[in-house]
Amino acid sequence: MTATADPYASRFGGGSEIVRREDPVRWGDRPGPLSPAEVDAYEANGFVVLRGVLSPAEAAGLLDDAHRVAEAAPRNADHVILEPGGAAVRSVFRVHRDRAVFARLCADPRTAGAARQLLGDDVYVHQSRINFKPAFVGEPFSWHSDFETWHVEDGMPRMRALSMSVLLTENTEHNGPLLVIPGSHRWFVRCAGVTPPDHHRESLRHQRYGSPAEGALHQLASSAGVASVIGPPGTIVLFDCNLLHASAGNVTPLPRHNVFVVYNAVSNALVAPFGTARPRPPFLAERDVVPLPLPS
Amino acid sequence: MTATADPYASRFGGGSEIVRREDPVRWGDRPGPLSPAEVDAYEANGFVVLRGVLSPAEAAGLLDDAHRVAEAAPRNADHVILEPGGAAVRSVFRVHRDRAVFARLCADPRTAGAARQLLGDDVYVHQSRINFKPAFVGEPFSWHSDFETWHVEDGMPRMRALSMSVLLTENTEHNGPLLVIPGSHRWFVRCAGVTPPDHHRESLRHQRYGSPAEGALHQLASSAGVASVIGPPGTIVLFDCNLLHASAGNVTPLPRHNVFVVYNAVSNALVAPFGTARPRPPFLAERDVVPLPLPS
Repeated sequence: MTATADPYASRFGGGSEIVRREDPVRWGDRPGPLSPAEVDAYEANGFVVLRGVLSPAEAAGLLDDAHRVAEAAPRNADHVILEPGGAAVRSVFRVHRDRAVFARLCADPRTAGAARQLLGDDVYVHQSRINFKPAFVGEPFSWHSDFETWHVEDGMPRMRALSMSVLLTENTEHNGPLLVIPGSHRWFVRCAGVTPPDHHRESLRHQRYGSPAEGALHQLASSAGVASVIGPPGTIVLFDCNLLHASAGNVTPLPRHNVFVVYNAVSNALVAPFGTARPRPPFLAERDVVPLPLPS
Repeated sequence: MTATADPYASRFGGGSEIVRREDPVRWGDRPGPLSPAEVDAYEANGFVVLRGVLSPAEAAGLLDDAHRVAEAAPRNADHVILEPGGAAVRSVFRVHRDRAVFARLCADPRTAGAARQLLGDDVYVHQSRINFKPAFVGEPFSWHSDFETWHVEDGMPRMRALSMSVLLTENTEHNGPLLVIPGSHRWFVRCAGVTPPDHHRESLRHQRYGSPAEGALHQLASSAGVASVIGPPGTIVLFDCNLLHASAGNVTPLPRHNVFVVYNAVSNALVAPFGTARPRPPFLAERDVVPLPLPS
């Protein structure tokens, strides 16, 4: 696959380049739980923050479940990621398959319904995880477009997916909240370099390939800057698969724990990776497309 | 020197402990450039943020000077600190001695005058540096009380010193601003462990000793939480030598560059270190006490 044949070619040995996105952000006019203003904000900025979607009791229950998942997580399993240089758990993947409570969260009309509304299709879970950013030692995430990785390493054809973050603890300005470059989802940044084999074993702890060049980040942040996503437990953030995002480390005494779910349109199911020989394992990129059931 | 003889003993092989501070925060009623409300805020919270002390033009001029200092800094000199794992300059020390423009900044009635007012004495510069926290790669600073290090490693007898940060670029919520625990300056946290020889060669890049136990940080942050210090270039922050502070890394495209100056009361000049055999070098801890001149 060459740069001319694939509009979203990246890491093929060329340099960094910013090109226009070819896909819509909002697909069609399917009804759903989001208000027209929320849909418009998502389309314009690439993300929308919805406070109070889950009740405080629901969020507290999920936080308890998340702690149990971390405690039970086998430290040497592929789907369990530890913080660089430490034994603290950074992420546990595949919770939509392994834990009924998180499977229900993924299929909830408030969450899956919003994904169907924005993507204009039935959806399935491409990836799920709990991100733990512990007090004092939580490490940062570099700037990246999720879609860039999913296209290059997993074979996701088009930008018809979205990410959802469910806040389980208060996300403040100081404990390493999600940072986004508003509007960056309308551009695709080809990244330099070539993906090394088994890149995900490294990239889930510290990403080196698939992170845009600093010049591209400066350029895309020059209009709207950088925005932080903060809110109390129970807040839900929906963001486009191609929105550039990052987060700082957490040096505060307040942990930042969130659930992260990726919805993909069933019509956008994975094919062969566009930039690597072998796809990543299923805990990172679901290849078994089972649409989430519609509410009865 | 044992824990009983020295009220601020720390890192003597004991555990972590929180004890009450024995010294005043504000020493006397010497007049100066700060308003009564600003002095009260400093005394109550341990810090005060003063916007617009320097004009935008002054701040821009100092930023240019700071860039020149970084470019000219010999990479292998003791007083030049590089970011962990990289070649970017993190700090350049001793700018009050090496650069006339920063010597003038340290002696300015707006800066040194405020220090004399709060410390109730003539003052000299204990330490000065430019802290560069470059875009994308700036690393965090762990929680610490400056006084704890200055007492243990430099021989500063009492809490009669203060730190001043002069903001040269905009310090936002996102680019690794100074984080403080308001009110923590009223307590002294003894730290566990024993200082290894030549600790400063490591601690200036990544501090491992002299950082309070997590339990102590939780306890001190339980009332007022964590506050960030943000502001435009030209803002000046004064904070007590014993205020617990930290900062996150900078993952944004916006660099955070500040000048940092420590004023000590001339009556509080250094003696032998309270916790190590040899004092740190003079670029970290001035031993030649020359009072800054009063305005004529």
